Amino acid sequence: MVDSTGFLFELLGNDAGSFARRGRLVTPHGVVQTPAFMPVGTIGAMKGLTPVQLAETGSEIMLSNTYHLALRPTPGVVEGLGGLHRFTGWDRPILTDSGGFQVFSLAKINRIDDDGVDFRSHIDGSLIRLTPEIATDIQNRLGADIIMAFDQCPPLPCDPAELTAAVDRTIAWAKRCRAAHSRSDQWQFGIVQGGVDHHQRRICAEQVIEVGFDGYAVGGLSVGESHEEMVDVLTGLCPRLPGDRPRYLMGVGVPRDLYAGVRAGIDMFDCVIPTRNGRHGHVFTATGPLKMRNERHRLDGGPLEEGCDCYACRTFSRGYLRHLFMAGEMLGPTLASIHNVRFLQRLMGRMRDLISTGDLATIPDEFPVVLETDGNDES
Amino acid sequence: MVDSTGFLFELLGNDAGSFARRGRLVTPHGVVQTPAFMPVGTIGAMKGLTPVQLAETGSEIMLSNTYHLALRPTPGVVEGLGGLHRFTGWDRPILTDSGGFQVFSLAKINRIDDDGVDFRSHIDGSLIRLTPEIATDIQNRLGADIIMAFDQCPPLPCDPAELTAAVDRTIAWAKRCRAAHSRSDQWQFGIVQGGVDHHQRRICAEQVIEVGFDGYAVGGLSVGESHEEMVDVLTGLCPRLPGDRPRYLMGVGVPRDLYAGVRAGIDMFDCVIPTRNGRHGHVFTATGPLKMRNERHRLDGGPLEEGCDCYACRTFSRGYLRHLFMAGEMLGPTLASIHNVRFLQRLMGRMRDLISTGDLATIPDEFPVVLETDGNDES
Repeated sequence: MVDSTGFLFELLGNDAGSFARRGRLVTPHGVVQTPAFMPVGTIGAMKGLTPVQLAETGSEIMLSNTYHLALRPTPGVVEGLGGLHRFTGWDRPILTDSGGFQVFSLAKINRIDDDGVDFRSHIDGSLIRLTPEIATDIQNRLGADIIMAFDQCPPLPCDPAELTAAVDRTIAWAKRCRAAHSRSDQWQFGIVQGGVDHHQRRICAEQVIEVGFDGYAVGGLSVGESHEEMVDVLTGLCPRLPGDRPRYLMGVGVPRDLYAGVRAGIDMFDCVIPTRNGRHGHVFTATGPLKMRNERHRLDGGPLEEGCDCYACRTFSRGYLRHLFMAGEMLGPTLASIHNVRFLQRLMGRMRDLISTGDLATIPDEFPVVLETDGNDES
Repeated sequence: MVDSTGFLFELLGNDAGSFARRGRLVTPHGVVQTPAFMPVGTIGAMKGLTPVQLAETGSEIMLSNTYHLALRPTPGVVEGLGGLHRFTGWDRPILTDSGGFQVFSLAKINRIDDDGVDFRSHIDGSLIRLTPEIATDIQNRLGADIIMAFDQCPPLPCDPAELTAAVDRTIAWAKRCRAAHSRSDQWQFGIVQGGVDHHQRRICAEQVIEVGFDGYAVGGLSVGESHEEMVDVLTGLCPRLPGDRPRYLMGVGVPRDLYAGVRAGIDMFDCVIPTRNGRHGHVFTATGPLKMRNERHRLDGGPLEEGCDCYACRTFSRGYLRHLFMAGEMLGPTLASIHNVRFLQRLMGRMRDLISTGDLATIPDEFPVVLETDGNDES
C-alpha cells in the first residue's frame, strides 16, 4: 500500500538460485521496477538525450548530482524554476546524490573536519562548504523523489585508521542528515561505507540502519577494487540490510557488476558509463563492446546490435554511426548513448523477468557480456 | 498530375500584393509544400537532431552537401549502404547541392579550367577533382530526390571579367551536367549565377533555361551583397524564370531574406543558420534574437518563445536553456536548434497560409523580425 507521502517499496518475487529480488518502488512521480538502472543526468540533463529520448530507453528514474547543481545553476535557481522535475522536463522519479562522492573525487578540498567540508568549486575556484545539514537542505530544495545522506567516501586502497575515521564520520553525518531532512514527499536513503573491510561495513550498516532510513545504499565501491572484492563486500553486506527496504549500489553500471549486484540482492544502480562510453563511440552489445570508429563498420548495413529495439538500432546502420563518429557529428554520441542506455535497460528488464521465474542464472546465455572482464571498456 | 517518375510541381495560389506563390512539390519520397525552407544536414545528419526531431519541426525536405559527402564517407559508402535516404534515416525528400559552392569557399583550389576543378580536401589534404560529369555522377549515386548542376560561384564583389568567365563556365557546365544526369527518379535543377549584375543574370538565366532543367536556382547570393542588392537581383531575375518550374534561392535563411525572397516569387530556400545559431545559443523569435547565455534568462520560467509549439518551448524554460549553455551541455544546442528550425518552419507555414488568402503583407505584424536588419545575428 502506498504510504501517505506517496511512496511504497514492495517485493514481488525472488530468484531461485541467488539473492536477487524483483520489486516495485512507487514514488510521487511514478513507479520504478526493480532491480533498476538509473542513468545519470549530472547537471539535470542526460548528455545528448532529451527527456523523451530517455523515456524511450525504458529508463524509469534519473539520477542528478547535487554537487554539480549546487555549483551551477545553484539550488536557488532550480527551486525558483519549479524544482528539478519541472526544471529538467523529466516528470518521472529522480534521485539526487548528496555530493559526498564528488567532493572527495572532483573538488580541491580546503579543510575537512567533523562538521563538514570546505572545498573549491572545480568550475570557478570559489570556496564552498558542505555539511550534512547543507547537503540535505540543498536536496530538499532541488526536490528529487529520493535524496541521499551526505557521507565521506574513502579512497581504495585506504589505510585502516583512515577507513575507520571515514566510517565514523559517515555514521555521525547520517544521523545529522536524517535530522535535517524536512520534506515528507521525499524519501531519504542512508549510505554504508567501509571499503572492502567486512568489519567496517558491518559496523557502518548497523549504525546507519539504527538511524532508520527509507532505503540503504552501498557506497565506496567501483572505485578501484577488483570485481571479486566488490562481490565479496556485497555478499557479506546485503544480508545485513533490512529486507523490506530498497538497496542501492552506487556508481555501478558495467554489465558484469550489474549482474553480480542483482544476484547479491541489490535493487538499484546508477552509472555514467552508458552515456560516457556512447560519447566516445563505444557501444554495448550482449557479446561485448564495439568501437564505432573501427574501419570494419564502414560498409556494415546492420544495426549496432541485432535484435535491439532502440531508436538507433531501428533506424541506422553501423556504417552510418561510424560515419557520424569519424566526422565528429553530435548525432553520433546521442545515438550511441541512446543505444547504450537502452542496452542496460534491456539487460535489467530481462533480469527482472528471469527473477520472476527463478531463472536468473540463464542471463549469461543471452548476455554473455555479463561474464566478461572487459564488458566495460573504459569504466 | 504526378509524372511517370513520381514528380510534380503545381502552383496553388498567388499573393495579392507581391509575386509570392504557394505550391506543392511532389517527389518520390513525399510532398513539399512551397515556399519551403530546407534545413541543412551537411554530412547527412542535422547537427544535433535525429530525423524524428527534424520531422517534428515541420521540415519536409532536407539538404545535404555533395562536397562533404564526396570527401567522407565517399559516394561508394553512401551507395553501398543503400543511398542517402536509407543512410541518413530521413525517408522524406532530400536535395543535394553540387559541391560548387563549397569547392570555391572551403577547399584549397589547385587548378581550375574549363573542364573542372582540382582541389585539396579540407579534411586530409588529398587531391580531388570535380567536373560537371563527376559532380552529377556523385549526386546520381547519393540518390537525393533533387540534384543540382555544378556551377562556378563567383565571389562578391567580383570584377566584370571574372564575373563573365564564371557565368560562361556555369552555362557550359550546366549543359554537361544535364547530359550527364542518368537517373529518371531524380529531378535536376540548373543554377543561375551573375552576381549583382542584371545583364549577366539575364544571360545566364536564358542560357540555363535553354538547357532545360526541372527547376532553377539562384546561386551566388547571400555571399556579401546588401539585402537591397539581393532584392534587386531577385526582382529582376524571377520574372525571367519559367513560371511553372520551382525556383530555389540558395543559402538563404535569415527571416528578412526569406520574406523578401518569397515576395519575389521564390519557392525554396536552404541555410545552416537555424542550427548554427542554435549551437551558439542564439535563438530566433518573432521579435528578434535571444542570446541564451544572457544573465537575464537565469530565473526566467517562460519558454524560449511564447506561443511556439516546438518541443523545446513546450517542455523547458529559458532558465533551463541558459543553464545548459552555461554548462556546455550538448542538449542546449539540440534544443535551441529544434526551436530555430521550427521557428523558420512556422514562418514559412504562415507565409504559405497568407499567400493563399492574398495577405502576405501582414507577415510583419506577426513576425516583426522580417523587417529587422539584425534578424540574423551571425549570418
